[in-house]
Amino acid sequence: MNVIPSDIDIAQQAKLEKITKIAHGLGVDEEFVAPYGHYKGKLSLELLHNASGKKDGKIILVTAINPTPAGEGKSTMTVGLGQALNHIGKKAVVAIREPSLGPTMGMKGGACGGGYSQVVPMEDINLHFTGDIHAITTAHNALTALIDNHIHRGNELGLDVRKLTWKRVMDMNDRSLRHIVAGLGGPLQGVPHESGFDITVASEIMAILCLADGINDLRSRLKKMVIGYTFHDEPLTVADLEVEGALTLLLKDAMMPNLVQTLENTPALIHGGPFANIAHGCNSVVATKMAAKLGDYVVTEAGFGADLGAEKFMNIKSRAGNIKPSVVVIVATIRALKMHGGAAKADLKQENLHALEKGFENLDKHIESIRAFGLPPVVAVNRFTHDTEEEINVLMKYCRQKGVAVELAEVWEKGGAGGVKLAEKIIQAADEPSVFTPLYDLELTIEAKINKIAKEIYGADGVDFSVEAKKQLERITDSGWGTLPVCMAKTQYSLSDDASKIGRPRNFRITVRELRVSAGAGFVVALTGNVMTMPGLPKRPGALDMDVSEDGNAVGLF
Amino acid sequence: MNVIPSDIDIAQQAKLEKITKIAHGLGVDEEFVAPYGHYKGKLSLELLHNASGKKDGKIILVTAINPTPAGEGKSTMTVGLGQALNHIGKKAVVAIREPSLGPTMGMKGGACGGGYSQVVPMEDINLHFTGDIHAITTAHNALTALIDNHIHRGNELGLDVRKLTWKRVMDMNDRSLRHIVAGLGGPLQGVPHESGFDITVASEIMAILCLADGINDLRSRLKKMVIGYTFHDEPLTVADLEVEGALTLLLKDAMMPNLVQTLENTPALIHGGPFANIAHGCNSVVATKMAAKLGDYVVTEAGFGADLGAEKFMNIKSRAGNIKPSVVVIVATIRALKMHGGAAKADLKQENLHALEKGFENLDKHIESIRAFGLPPVVAVNRFTHDTEEEINVLMKYCRQKGVAVELAEVWEKGGAGGVKLAEKIIQAADEPSVFTPLYDLELTIEAKINKIAKEIYGADGVDFSVEAKKQLERITDSGWGTLPVCMAKTQYSLSDDASKIGRPRNFRITVRELRVSAGAGFVVALTGNVMTMPGLPKRPGALDMDVSEDGNAVGLF
Repeated sequence: MNVIPSDIDIAQQAKLEKITKIAHGLGVDEEFVAPYGHYKGKLSLELLHNASGKKDGKIILVTAINPTPAGEGKSTMTVGLGQALNHIGKKAVVAIREPSLGPTMGMKGGACGGGYSQVVPMEDINLHFTGDIHAITTAHNALTALIDNHIHRGNELGLDVRKLTWKRVMDMNDRSLRHIVAGLGGPLQGVPHESGFDITVASEIMAILCLADGINDLRSRLKKMVIGYTFHDEPLTVADLEVEGALTLLLKDAMMPNLVQTLENTPALIHGGPFANIAHGCNSVVATKMAAKLGDYVVTEAGFGADLGAEKFMNIKSRAGNIKPSVVVIVATIRALKMHGGAAKADLKQENLHALEKGFENLDKHIESIRAFGLPPVVAVNRFTHDTEEEINVLMKYCRQKGVAVELAEVWEKGGAGGVKLAEKIIQAADEPSVFTPLYDLELTIEAKINKIAKEIYGADGVDFSVEAKKQLERITDSGWGTLPVCMAKTQYSLSDDASKIGRPRNFRITVRELRVSAGAGFVVALTGNVMTMPGLPKRPGALDMDVSEDGNAVGLF
Repeated sequence: MNVIPSDIDIAQQAKLEKITKIAHGLGVDEEFVAPYGHYKGKLSLELLHNASGKKDGKIILVTAINPTPAGEGKSTMTVGLGQALNHIGKKAVVAIREPSLGPTMGMKGGACGGGYSQVVPMEDINLHFTGDIHAITTAHNALTALIDNHIHRGNELGLDVRKLTWKRVMDMNDRSLRHIVAGLGGPLQGVPHESGFDITVASEIMAILCLADGINDLRSRLKKMVIGYTFHDEPLTVADLEVEGALTLLLKDAMMPNLVQTLENTPALIHGGPFANIAHGCNSVVATKMAAKLGDYVVTEAGFGADLGAEKFMNIKSRAGNIKPSVVVIVATIRALKMHGGAAKADLKQENLHALEKGFENLDKHIESIRAFGLPPVVAVNRFTHDTEEEINVLMKYCRQKGVAVELAEVWEKGGAGGVKLAEKIIQAADEPSVFTPLYDLELTIEAKINKIAKEIYGADGVDFSVEAKKQLERITDSGWGTLPVCMAKTQYSLSDDASKIGRPRNFRITVRELRVSAGAGFVVALTGNVMTMPGLPKRPGALDMDVSEDGNAVGLF
């Protein structure tokens, strides 16, 4: 067995092309690339219009079974697949999310893929990158400062400080900021109020940046964001404060997709990274559309498993961007399937056909769901060292029996070469005619939409709404938000709303405890449990190992 | 009289050179320039070593009389002077501070100069620029999160949460964040504690970035920062937490000076912008040194009037970077001198020789101080529309009588061409031999250093220390910080510590109310009054006028 170097070692040894050369390979002139250093660049949104005559490339959506502690390697598969497509002569562009810096200080492990399927320069991408997330932090907190100033200066709009829903954000894991009291210190220091910080990627502005199809759409979405309620319970929006222009200006550059490359010089657009529970968990609409303008195939991913990420891709992102996937890749591992079948994490190195076969039912449900959207699923088996031949054979046979395309991939160990067969299967599936249909009609009530998702995607018997949620449903409809799509905030570990119910739970109901409106992003969030929107640092933070080497390189980042 | 367009109109009509071309003009190869878009770039710190054989360019320090509401135009003069030097065939590089984004949302007016003497692209420079300030925000708040996490996880170091001196920062004017209570919500949400946010440029990390002479010095300064005190009143530092490496990594790119250009394509390094009261108020040491490596003349500025900015340049920055100015330009205006002589702001358009002559005494004191450092002063008179010939003649004559070089400049209206005569006078002064000596020896006690500054620079009779300050003096000496230079935090409007005492106050004493140690930056801050480290927004914030135009340009920024 080969010994594979660490991710950062592989990344730092990569032979990168200048970003202008990568852009040139996509037919993009230098004037449309704003370089950020030699190996990163921002692409002008004009490219979307300039290339408007070109036929769009096909969208390959990468999703997964429900995540387990064993790991699936969805990002690695996405990057590797982009590389593999180039191996077979296809013009492919990868389009993925950009990572948040905050968690980097805490846990090792970034969001750039792994092994020989990574996007680079991974150090930059995992740190400040091109400043998109800093721009979102700034715009979010500028709005908060402007709201507070409005109240401090007389509160003409009559905002009830107890009903202020707009909080603050920081791209850092700082649990002490979850709940704060601000505005203390007397009449010169603002108005006392309860507040708190979310991590920046949980900001509604991040979701908006990822759903807007250009600067004008960005501005009109920002305008609709609800900041709180008046003493008479009327919602107040950014439009009432008249600061949508300033926020748009702060986000002007952040709206441009970032171009980087994979270890094999495949172009990759990395842009936007909203939460996959309280938001929709996909990279930006403009990046996906631009990738489709520039390439013949776009490999893109959605957060968590297919029940969350893929469902939201189909019902939220596809609608916002008029983006139609041609094929959906479901990433699975023998290890994770065994866990869904009841095997313990410590025992995963042992062959366990019984647990494996039991675990197939989780995969089954996702295959059914993808087919329900009218799309062909392809199962990508991400090979791990301890997977036995027998285990792999059983899985392959099972998929074939179900009439599902399936292929083994070794992109982590071998890069694009390890995914050639998979790439061929995917192209074949993508080239077949398909009729993509979202799951629900927007004219359905919010309640009906949630029921449809719960029953048809999760396999639930029904949905219970808390008393609070019922009241909120009414208010949402009254305020004219009833025709928005729904964004489910649910545990990623189970098809149900109970993280411990792995595999394919049956005979369960979903409980919606709370509803929130993201009027600018354009969806109603249905919370089925507590969602942590500001993480904390672990006992021994990764920051302790980080440094800069004598020759100026990042140390201990991963 | 010509009608001069607005700053943003002039800036947007400028003919910019690609940043690689500007670098090339300085003899810098493309590999040492990390471009940020087409017109901004970061210069590799390697250039400092590569060019180590070259004779350093001469440093021209631009300072001013005490600021008045009439304005002096110090930044405009600095930029215009750089342009003027190029007019007379000198290879000049401008080195100035980078502006904070926060205040941009509040008041109109940036920090890029004005009229035909601006640095560009001013929209970018005034917004996110190359992300330096965002990196400092991140490093500062990462440290806070790591401290809180340490306490939350058992507090092995025994940090007394009531004596936590390290707070948080944000690059935004948000008065509600001055005083907060954080860590609320129960045992999972951190430890309750009082905290608050300063604006990012007030962070000690900003001061450190500006004083460090490279990555290794950066790390060792970060290591020394005091974060708070134990239950036994022992200071705890970043070294105790062992996270200086992580902070260094977060600041790696921010340490590289930013290269831009003036409206006339003169190279300008814009890097770092610490407060001029609780910090030293000058651009970075690495930028000034690099400018000296790349040009024959460096035009650089220091914050506020000569009593604060120039004094700190000489006693703090010069020492940290081994930087010796050759000449000091004191910017004055007829308007401001008349205010120092007692004229009201509303009456400044009227000729008032009496007030003008009375106001000379403020200029006098600064001339004396610059001479006390062994350096030749040159008075630059920034011409305004309503200045009368008679007023100008009186000022010119006065300076000549005192043996001080003086020249009129019209760089705002005419760009470099308006400063040619001034540039010639300055070169003449810079080429004369001078013996620069800092004001005090580091071996003096902190008390003695403060006394020396107060008496010799401010003209005070002496210094009174509050009871609290006396205790702190003792503690500072005991902790081994007694040999650090002093950083005075005093009103910029008066030579005294009372803002209303304009002109040249006499028979006054300075009161030091509090002392703080910036052990990483390497100075002891002496506070003579309340210093506002988190500004608020005005009644009608500038944000209300901002937007992005149809063709993607910034609107309403200035």
